[in-house]
Amino acid sequence: STVAAQTLSVASTTAAVSRGILLSIRHYCKKTPTKLTVSEAVAGAELGANVKVQGWVRSVRPQRANLFLHVNDGSSLQSLQIVASSELNDPLLTFGSAVEVTGILKKSPSQKQPVELEADQIHVVGECNPLDFPFKIKERHGLEYIRQFPHLRCRTNAFSSLLRIRSEATTAIHSYFKENDFVQIHTPVITSNDCEGAGELFQIEPSKSENEEDENFFSVPAFLTVSGQLHLEVMSGAFSRVYTFGPTFRAENSQSRRHLAEFYMVEAEVSFTQSLEDLTKVMEDMFRSATEHVLAYCAEDVDLFHKHVTPGHKDTVDSMLKKRFPVITYSEAIDILNRSSEKFDFSTHWGCDLQTEHEKYLVKHCGNIPVFVTDYPYDLKPFYARDNEDHPQHTAAAVDLLVPGVGELCGGSLREERLDLLRARLEEVGLEDTYSW
Amino acid sequence: STVAAQTLSVASTTAAVSRGILLSIRHYCKKTPTKLTVSEAVAGAELGANVKVQGWVRSVRPQRANLFLHVNDGSSLQSLQIVASSELNDPLLTFGSAVEVTGILKKSPSQKQPVELEADQIHVVGECNPLDFPFKIKERHGLEYIRQFPHLRCRTNAFSSLLRIRSEATTAIHSYFKENDFVQIHTPVITSNDCEGAGELFQIEPSKSENEEDENFFSVPAFLTVSGQLHLEVMSGAFSRVYTFGPTFRAENSQSRRHLAEFYMVEAEVSFTQSLEDLTKVMEDMFRSATEHVLAYCAEDVDLFHKHVTPGHKDTVDSMLKKRFPVITYSEAIDILNRSSEKFDFSTHWGCDLQTEHEKYLVKHCGNIPVFVTDYPYDLKPFYARDNEDHPQHTAAAVDLLVPGVGELCGGSLREERLDLLRARLEEVGLEDTYSW
Repeated sequence: STVAAQTLSVASTTAAVSRGILLSIRHYCKKTPTKLTVSEAVAGAELGANVKVQGWVRSVRPQRANLFLHVNDGSSLQSLQIVASSELNDPLLTFGSAVEVTGILKKSPSQKQPVELEADQIHVVGECNPLDFPFKIKERHGLEYIRQFPHLRCRTNAFSSLLRIRSEATTAIHSYFKENDFVQIHTPVITSNDCEGAGELFQIEPSKSENEEDENFFSVPAFLTVSGQLHLEVMSGAFSRVYTFGPTFRAENSQSRRHLAEFYMVEAEVSFTQSLEDLTKVMEDMFRSATEHVLAYCAEDVDLFHKHVTPGHKDTVDSMLKKRFPVITYSEAIDILNRSSEKFDFSTHWGCDLQTEHEKYLVKHCGNIPVFVTDYPYDLKPFYARDNEDHPQHTAAAVDLLVPGVGELCGGSLREERLDLLRARLEEVGLEDTYSW
Repeated sequence: STVAAQTLSVASTTAAVSRGILLSIRHYCKKTPTKLTVSEAVAGAELGANVKVQGWVRSVRPQRANLFLHVNDGSSLQSLQIVASSELNDPLLTFGSAVEVTGILKKSPSQKQPVELEADQIHVVGECNPLDFPFKIKERHGLEYIRQFPHLRCRTNAFSSLLRIRSEATTAIHSYFKENDFVQIHTPVITSNDCEGAGELFQIEPSKSENEEDENFFSVPAFLTVSGQLHLEVMSGAFSRVYTFGPTFRAENSQSRRHLAEFYMVEAEVSFTQSLEDLTKVMEDMFRSATEHVLAYCAEDVDLFHKHVTPGHKDTVDSMLKKRFPVITYSEAIDILNRSSEKFDFSTHWGCDLQTEHEKYLVKHCGNIPVFVTDYPYDLKPFYARDNEDHPQHTAAAVDLLVPGVGELCGGSLREERLDLLRARLEEVGLEDTYSW
């Protein structure tokens, strides 16, 4: 059953060990095989050596004399080809089953792969009944189909590539901040702070069945964080550079690619800034270094998506990394949009919010590379954005980074540090008590 | 006011710039100063060069001819000594104020510090009224007092050291897993899974004032995660090594050092394990490498706690890193406890849960170093722990790591992979439907 496929593959291997007793006796006379990941084996580590590889069967091709398998262990998109005498075939050797293979790693005679493992032992460590397993060998299943099996979808190429990319992107983001002397802060998930006074919060309470009497577990209403920014601002009174990278929440009841109840967000605060350039530099450098890291460490996985999901996007990414990102003001952006012959769903005028359609047009207009838009209308920005004190078009020192295919990717602002201005604005928006601290 | 102290220090410096116009004209004739963190300056980077340092004033000592300041920017526990002509003194130059200092970095004539900055400019970038600021110069405030000012406590030595250590420990944990080929998984915070069927959950709902009609935002009751383990077990059917490191929640209404509503937890799953040694190796190696990393990168910060909070603990840490961690079985642990002459609050017998007092005694008994206790009574462990099928003392292949000063630090088990045993146990505890997947 699918349960068997899922659980059997996880843990130890008593059954396989007892079935392998005869082979094991012979095995003790040889050198202990070196354990390799599929990724190491495919890269040609330990060519000619006796090695052991563990993973899940992605294909089985029994021929007259030989048996061919592909085994994947999640360390790379590519699987390792196993060649064995057909005597080693086993009815339990099915698509999805978990195996342990030992043998000699050799150069492959075929052009299809650089190396293959000439197996002398194959243990089926976890069975997988092909009738019950929802994914079929050699079939490309659509995402809507895969979505029905959340506990098994990581076994598909698309999801395992996505998860490797996400893991590397996370590493890349932490590395960028680490290398640039930022201190990482775990801003709280449970908070009484609703940040910008915006709605769409999740509220939390102890589960009632367990704690009938704990009506006031927290002394104030408690929410899931929508932003760690104000916590970070506190920290930036003691550390010059801080960041947080954690889960963030919105109770937006929308089903779209742009709305998630839970998502990961990077936030940073830099003290002693002088101008928006101090911020755009961090935004551009982080974007660039994270993108380059992912392209370097997940080339195959990224190519899978370039091939099957977003053809043409590879060129866009390559070209954006070669150029510095242009900077235009909001007023210039409005001019560009007003002069455009494009038909927009929403018309534009100075003071309006930019819609995704506008953002995407601006990106195209600037050469299909990321573009910074600065100095937004003061009234569009939250209380903490620094007043540019200009007129008649009153703006705040805020910036958004728009990128191809997405629109707004990140935003920021200089923080209003002039106490009189900040206090007047908080009073104006009725938040003076909330932020008295 | 304290608000001024907190907000003014964060952002840009218009006031200071205008006050500094005369000095700035002179300044343009010189080479632009190199910006350094306090940590870089104290380490003697750029000795003899014209440098700029930004941070918060930790002490002010005006003397007849000279003014002495200490400036800290959160990059290290140590502050940088500034020496300036007393003409540069300014009534706004107070404890807690934010400053920007330029001058020449020199070897200090005093033994107290290796270098000092001979300042030619000091700008007060953010004011701090000493009457309103709750922390006083040269005073060591108790934690109970500091706790009243959550938005300012990061400006104390104890909290800034703690936050730097936490940041480095986080880096160390990610590095260990990265170097050992683990894929990082962001397991969800919002989940309908209550993991072990244990209580003490937080339940979440869209905030009512905002979404009156969204009673069924999620189609099932939604909770904050108590463990990502089962999500990781799913992933370990496609990746040989996975881990997660994120916020975890318990609605335990206890005020103690051992209970938090929100805390960070590391969890890992290793596929293709053969014995508990595969797990104790990961646990020991991660503990060791994270500890060594923190000791190497936060030596000063750790020393602060060794001096003022846990005297004697330094020797304990040093000695534990020199030895392999011993492994004893639960049965051996019970024998040790039964033979002991120590008076425990809870008596011990085979089958009982180990209390913190017992765990601490076992650690002392083993030489005050971390110790693994394995093979706990089957009935004490959750359904997924692998049955050792022994008798008459029926145990599961589970392990806890006990450490000096704390007791249980982490635990793990081989996972039950035999479908018939797993199914029987789930039925026994009434969880067969919940975990049918």
